Amino acid sequence: MFSFNKLAIFGVGLIGGSLARALRAQPAGLGPLGQIFGIGRSASSAARALELGVIDHAVALNDETGVAHALADADVVLIAAPVAQTQSLLEQIARHLGPRTIVTDAGSTKCGVIDAARTALGSRIGQFVPGHPIAGRESSGVDAALADLYEGRNVVLCPLPENARADVERIGAMWRAAGARLHEMSAAQHDAVFAAVSHLPHVASFAMVEAILRAPDAALKLSFAAGGFRDFTRIAASSPEMWRDICIANRAALLRELDAYTGVLATLRAAIDTGDGAVLESLFARSREARADWGRERAASSSIKTPPEAG
Amino acid sequence: MFSFNKLAIFGVGLIGGSLARALRAQPAGLGPLGQIFGIGRSASSAARALELGVIDHAVALNDETGVAHALADADVVLIAAPVAQTQSLLEQIARHLGPRTIVTDAGSTKCGVIDAARTALGSRIGQFVPGHPIAGRESSGVDAALADLYEGRNVVLCPLPENARADVERIGAMWRAAGARLHEMSAAQHDAVFAAVSHLPHVASFAMVEAILRAPDAALKLSFAAGGFRDFTRIAASSPEMWRDICIANRAALLRELDAYTGVLATLRAAIDTGDGAVLESLFARSREARADWGRERAASSSIKTPPEAG
Repeated sequence: MFSFNKLAIFGVGLIGGSLARALRAQPAGLGPLGQIFGIGRSASSAARALELGVIDHAVALNDETGVAHALADADVVLIAAPVAQTQSLLEQIARHLGPRTIVTDAGSTKCGVIDAARTALGSRIGQFVPGHPIAGRESSGVDAALADLYEGRNVVLCPLPENARADVERIGAMWRAAGARLHEMSAAQHDAVFAAVSHLPHVASFAMVEAILRAPDAALKLSFAAGGFRDFTRIAASSPEMWRDICIANRAALLRELDAYTGVLATLRAAIDTGDGAVLESLFARSREARADWGRERAASSSIKTPPEAG
Repeated sequence: MFSFNKLAIFGVGLIGGSLARALRAQPAGLGPLGQIFGIGRSASSAARALELGVIDHAVALNDETGVAHALADADVVLIAAPVAQTQSLLEQIARHLGPRTIVTDAGSTKCGVIDAARTALGSRIGQFVPGHPIAGRESSGVDAALADLYEGRNVVLCPLPENARADVERIGAMWRAAGARLHEMSAAQHDAVFAAVSHLPHVASFAMVEAILRAPDAALKLSFAAGGFRDFTRIAASSPEMWRDICIANRAALLRELDAYTGVLATLRAAIDTGDGAVLESLFARSREARADWGRERAASSSIKTPPEAG
């Protein structure tokens, strides 16, 4: 059972707004509803969240007094802003952080966020429980926020050695109240997983489009692009700023996964060059089988939805 | 206006069967309906096409007398078999080819097919008009054949210097009667286009799955794979044998496109490694814009359908 008197959400967009909506819908796993403070990058973004009834109190990030008030005696603080802003937000939060407040985040990379948190919070690092809800939609912003965005979705927590177990459980209970399935793993493992299954596919998709654009016959090529190109490059419609930040924030893990991928491409290149059909067919068959198994397990586990845009 | 007394289709699967169905539906651009001979790899595959009413006469490929009869005085011969079988089929066809018969094909690579045709047909190469209908479905075989598979789809012809213009026009008229839009380009240009927008995306998709499978934490990674992975690897469900053959048949063009792609990946790797956000963002933004333009043009040109599995 999760309960709170005061919840402060930094960044009331799709991710933060959807958590607020989920809790305000008073689900079964939630105690008496407390007050939700939304801290927006601008006064207008927070005001919009207030207008939509997503939060109880709107605060602008540059209103230091307002931020201090939002943080005073807060039970939980959620940082739901782009990863590149995490450090400066944590520095601001650190100035007003009480001893009983737990801070968590929703960033799609974890090692870099933890480094930023150690710098910003110092000896109070134990109050920070790193998290990552795996959910998204094509559209962003608080207008896109949904009470059931986290229903059946995965949330990964990457507890630190300094965390009190009760604090980790409390953040877990908050996400469970919103309908999510909780998982725990190390930050390094988290970053490797999402580098492989999310960050690298995005980089590879952007690269595929760019490779065509660099060719003198780009227009002709694009005019004949069909199903394979469409599927492969759909995720190249994602936010350049967000993916720039994710690539940099998850640099080490992403480089490892990128090198593994280009290693396989080099194997395939050699097989194509020498006409080694046996290598090509066995690798393709293995991939097809694994992809088909994955698809079947997804379909069978129907309560796990695959979001269109999970960072 | 396309008309024929006798059409022989080698390979009565999805592609050959759909052309037969389209012509038998007696579309506007077709003269009086002639006889359609279907030559199957086995007696049973041709018999199935006959049973479904797709063809008028079924012949097994190893029935040399039957093949000779199918080819005698044929107006048009269509080879709609996997590209790796093209040369041996053309050698068999060459043994029975009359002087007024035009041979065309539906292979998804063209330079290799033309080399095979020159070897098999020698001085009669002018009778071969290379073609590639850009159409497909998730399912294959004659049971999946549709009369409207080519409606609004692109067909590329790659005329040879030796072709009589009237013969090229006649093959074009056949595909137009089936509802297709005709395009002409050189075989080298064709192979570069499809290496870039179809063959490379398939190779990259298979490689992405393989890179994950090689990792010790493959199962954990796959359990957290979501939208990006799903979109990027959907085409890894394609036939390993078909893609093995296409990779080998289009070796030269595919290697060029693969090298261009890995060149972009190397640029991105360097930018990630040095944390060069400006390079990442500008490249991502350029790709996103081009992909969005492509999607809008596709949507606007609603009569061009994007098939799920165009080789």
